[in-house]
Amino acid sequence: MSKTVHNVEELSLDTGVQEMLLKAREDGVETAFDRSEAMGARCKFGLLGVCCKRCLEGPCRIVPGGKGPQAGVCGATADAIVARNFLTLVTEGAAPHIEHAREVALTLLETAEGKAPYSISNPDKLLDIAARLGLTVDGREIKEVAREVALKALENFQQQFGVLPWLKIKAQPKTVERWQSLNVLPVNAHLEVTNAVNRQAMGCDADPVNLLLGAIRVALTDGYAGLHLSTDLQDVLFGVPAVVKSEYRLGVIKEDMVNISVHGHIPMLSEKIVEWAEKLENEARAVGAKGINIFGVCCTGNEILMRRGVPVATNFSSQEMPIVTGAVEAMVVDIQCIMPSLPRVAKCYHTEIITTLPSVKIPGATHVEFTPENADEAAQTIIRKAIANFTKRDPAKIKIPQDKVEAYAGFSTEQILEALKKVNQEDPLQPLVENIKSGNILGVVALVGCTNPRIKQDWANVEVAKELLKHNVLIVATGCSAHSLAKFSLMSPRGLEYCGEGLQQVLKVIGKANGLETLPPVLHMGSCVDNSRVDDLVMTLANYLGVEARDLPVAGSSPEVQSPKALAIGSYFLAQGIDVHVGIQPPIAGSELVSNILMGDKDRHALTMDGLFGGKLIYEEDPIKAAHLILERIIQKRKALGLPCPDIT
Amino acid sequence: MSKTVHNVEELSLDTGVQEMLLKAREDGVETAFDRSEAMGARCKFGLLGVCCKRCLEGPCRIVPGGKGPQAGVCGATADAIVARNFLTLVTEGAAPHIEHAREVALTLLETAEGKAPYSISNPDKLLDIAARLGLTVDGREIKEVAREVALKALENFQQQFGVLPWLKIKAQPKTVERWQSLNVLPVNAHLEVTNAVNRQAMGCDADPVNLLLGAIRVALTDGYAGLHLSTDLQDVLFGVPAVVKSEYRLGVIKEDMVNISVHGHIPMLSEKIVEWAEKLENEARAVGAKGINIFGVCCTGNEILMRRGVPVATNFSSQEMPIVTGAVEAMVVDIQCIMPSLPRVAKCYHTEIITTLPSVKIPGATHVEFTPENADEAAQTIIRKAIANFTKRDPAKIKIPQDKVEAYAGFSTEQILEALKKVNQEDPLQPLVENIKSGNILGVVALVGCTNPRIKQDWANVEVAKELLKHNVLIVATGCSAHSLAKFSLMSPRGLEYCGEGLQQVLKVIGKANGLETLPPVLHMGSCVDNSRVDDLVMTLANYLGVEARDLPVAGSSPEVQSPKALAIGSYFLAQGIDVHVGIQPPIAGSELVSNILMGDKDRHALTMDGLFGGKLIYEEDPIKAAHLILERIIQKRKALGLPCPDIT
Repeated sequence: MSKTVHNVEELSLDTGVQEMLLKAREDGVETAFDRSEAMGARCKFGLLGVCCKRCLEGPCRIVPGGKGPQAGVCGATADAIVARNFLTLVTEGAAPHIEHAREVALTLLETAEGKAPYSISNPDKLLDIAARLGLTVDGREIKEVAREVALKALENFQQQFGVLPWLKIKAQPKTVERWQSLNVLPVNAHLEVTNAVNRQAMGCDADPVNLLLGAIRVALTDGYAGLHLSTDLQDVLFGVPAVVKSEYRLGVIKEDMVNISVHGHIPMLSEKIVEWAEKLENEARAVGAKGINIFGVCCTGNEILMRRGVPVATNFSSQEMPIVTGAVEAMVVDIQCIMPSLPRVAKCYHTEIITTLPSVKIPGATHVEFTPENADEAAQTIIRKAIANFTKRDPAKIKIPQDKVEAYAGFSTEQILEALKKVNQEDPLQPLVENIKSGNILGVVALVGCTNPRIKQDWANVEVAKELLKHNVLIVATGCSAHSLAKFSLMSPRGLEYCGEGLQQVLKVIGKANGLETLPPVLHMGSCVDNSRVDDLVMTLANYLGVEARDLPVAGSSPEVQSPKALAIGSYFLAQGIDVHVGIQPPIAGSELVSNILMGDKDRHALTMDGLFGGKLIYEEDPIKAAHLILERIIQKRKALGLPCPDIT
Repeated sequence: MSKTVHNVEELSLDTGVQEMLLKAREDGVETAFDRSEAMGARCKFGLLGVCCKRCLEGPCRIVPGGKGPQAGVCGATADAIVARNFLTLVTEGAAPHIEHAREVALTLLETAEGKAPYSISNPDKLLDIAARLGLTVDGREIKEVAREVALKALENFQQQFGVLPWLKIKAQPKTVERWQSLNVLPVNAHLEVTNAVNRQAMGCDADPVNLLLGAIRVALTDGYAGLHLSTDLQDVLFGVPAVVKSEYRLGVIKEDMVNISVHGHIPMLSEKIVEWAEKLENEARAVGAKGINIFGVCCTGNEILMRRGVPVATNFSSQEMPIVTGAVEAMVVDIQCIMPSLPRVAKCYHTEIITTLPSVKIPGATHVEFTPENADEAAQTIIRKAIANFTKRDPAKIKIPQDKVEAYAGFSTEQILEALKKVNQEDPLQPLVENIKSGNILGVVALVGCTNPRIKQDWANVEVAKELLKHNVLIVATGCSAHSLAKFSLMSPRGLEYCGEGLQQVLKVIGKANGLETLPPVLHMGSCVDNSRVDDLVMTLANYLGVEARDLPVAGSSPEVQSPKALAIGSYFLAQGIDVHVGIQPPIAGSELVSNILMGDKDRHALTMDGLFGGKLIYEEDPIKAAHLILERIIQKRKALGLPCPDIT
């Protein structure tokens, strides 16, 4: 085990996590927080993005402007290497979403064909999508329509010509024209990923600008064939989220129950786990438990929180902590953000780590293969394993933090519109837009992304949010950032105290119209793929106002970004012309050119994302400064729209 | 410019290259050889494969067994990191071939539809492929069949279920069964690449065995949807290669002509350049040149050498040298292995570097976009640019090495069978097989791959070849290795002196039957994608003998490997059960587990490629030792077949 230096208070804002970190140390368990400290200072070449190991001439690395070679053996400059590495990160971020989306499309197809035990939970959304896709829906059976929608969805991974179908039904025509002129319109998702890998490879694309446009192309693929496609079809299969009240933090683990954690990203399995947990309660009672307690971690947690109100224990950095409680019978994982350390942590307790997908295995885990067809069987097998493990608990090792906190979730765009209808039935967007215009709502920021053991968990996410709320910015949240904000009461009425006066007023009015004391100041919109919902909301507002997304006073912020998925999603919003803040240094500083293109102002640099698309990347570690950089840009956009702007200095 | 230490004699075996390296130093031009020296000792973490920069928790790096952390922040062990990095290399190797193949399929489609100015040069091969694919060919127009074959080819990038069509028509059923049982059968090429990127990404696959099987799956994709598909359809469009006599080395550049170098991999453009060079001779004469001289570099060079006998100047490491002659008007590049340094070198001379594909641009190059539809126009534009540049030459800067050497090429499997028919019309394989059985031919080795500025150019390729020839191993060659061997007379009758007695005898008999003094001891089978031809030859032999490829006394060797494509191709042959030697350390030494799986003997380790598939990776830098390791394995396989084995110690 590695030497630990920091006090647990410096590692996480979450007191339950702090408690478990101390327990882990006592139990001799190594955690991500320990490993992050042990790793020490990170490799500077890697941090700058100037390391290349794409062929056997190298590895090569460049000290930009230093005495050493200014190009790799092949002649790739720091600019090319940095741009290529950025494209790699975006591609590695997009591919998991794309495979996620395809799994959902295949599940819908198999459901429509009666081969998988799911149903069409939301025929209205299905019919709406079918209509957008130009499919005939009148007089046809719902399963028939579902099959056609699924086949059309699969075209997003197949067609050799044309523009990604899901982009065509979702994006604004004027924005699409811009993308067309810059040659960044994707054809199909698998083709785009392969082409991106192709151009990254040794001896292929060496033009930093071309490579960055390539990254945008992959990011658009991610946005439409990853995020939107996943969310849309998941809503069809499992329902459109509506407001739910639930609980957060490690205190949601229950000592007297069989505890099963679902962790990962794809709801097809977790939905079935929730379903079968209810059906197999009796078997749990037979071994002395009071029942079965399902709780979420990461985005699978978000999926079943949003639709079923299932509580969430914790987020990325602390995913090992539920195991450290000694009271978790099984942690079921599907895909993405799964720490390979989980089975090693579980070895010290009775927890069984269960992997479920053929492309995600971990040494030391039990593998129960999940397919849509065998979903019921896989769920039962997993739950029965967990029940059997209940009897293997070591009472001496059990300690569950008591902290838990109430949170509201389920704010799909549809739900937000429903809530607004209670204020203005005829013209639901009117109250929102009026308040944006007046400045009661200064703008909307999506707090998204991760936590990262490189910095104190939850802290930056919460600080950025509070500073923005204070300045009347409405916050929507997804992913592990959403967990951070929920854990600190920003998704409950208690969060109102952090809001500026204007925002408080709006939230109360809408809340009261919906029979609540107030809306929470942060609206939980779901998992990372549900950043599509954020986009839906932005599109809804932009179309209502007759402007482009890039014109709106909106931004994204990922203060504790860790996953390349966040960079892919961020680049997708950049392509829409929406500013994106990251609080961890992206590996681009090794190239002034690349840094300027991504982060520069259009008024100061010849070629920028800001100039081409209308949004820029903002890198700032200090959360308060970051919030103010975001506020500045929101005010710029308000000014351009001719809206009143407060003095926020 | 960086300090150069080595004498040019230590950098390349090629005297013309040595001469140009001296000239480059005089002209103040930096080359890959300089950069390789300046890069100095390579990063140890990278060399061992234990560096990970896939997310923003890191970059992480591990000293295996050292005092530091034994896992990345996420918990990925050295085993997982090394296996993931190996998968990345194989994927980056496969993707370019896959995109190459798709381009060819699209060209065939457009040709069939009359949209692209190409023709079906080899209807027999087309009909053969159509028949294998189960398409109806009787009574149908050739263009109609071509269209169907093209659409079927595109299914290799589209189908969501089943097994890669090109694998089904090419692989041995018994081998396919093995692949099926190991779950490594690809569905479609783009899907496999995307899935591979997905499983490499942070928090996804962490099981080294699963990851290595994933690499095999990508490698099979490369083999069938990359190599075979490309070669087959290129043969349909441009003809099946037959024996040609040509020339090699920098002396093929002609002082009194407009010199155009074609460099890259895809023959669609280079074929048109060759065609239009003839048609535009007059325009060249009008500016004072004696005509237009096209010469090849890298694999585009191989493509037009094999089919048109166009001479080849040089291979990968020295691709900058033709420019240094001061006599090259244009270097036209398409894709893969293109050094980004080319425009910087060209800046010192009058050479114009012309990029042609949207995904491969280089700062400082002229971009003339090539599509199959505009092939004629693009070729003319490029040639006219070159002609115009002829007048910009600086005579003081011109110096062309005089060395050149005769070489035979064009040995497609079809050509080899034709040559054998001259010995035995009824049963052409009989003489070859009898000589293998008797030991006159001990085995067959494919010398493939690259040159790499990390070691003396051409030296290891040539030394391995000579040592094998001495022991009566018949050599087939592709890629830049083929260039190495050709440059040193191993593809001409002069190479006979290096062969053992048995091999000499066989080569003379077959040669004489074909009206030649002898066959050359090394048969040039083409470009890197033409490793499919090597596979075709192996399949032909194996099927004739009623055994699997893995049973044959054959192997692959890449003594100067540089490109990840070589690792993808190598893994494809490993999956077939064919041993593969590499002379440069692959980045796997950081994991004993991964090293043992890839390189271990099945008798000594529980889990190995050797045990699973029948072939293993051999890493040996010393060419003589490497040749003997290969010979040992060939003798093992001969013994298993009950064939006589000489004592070769």
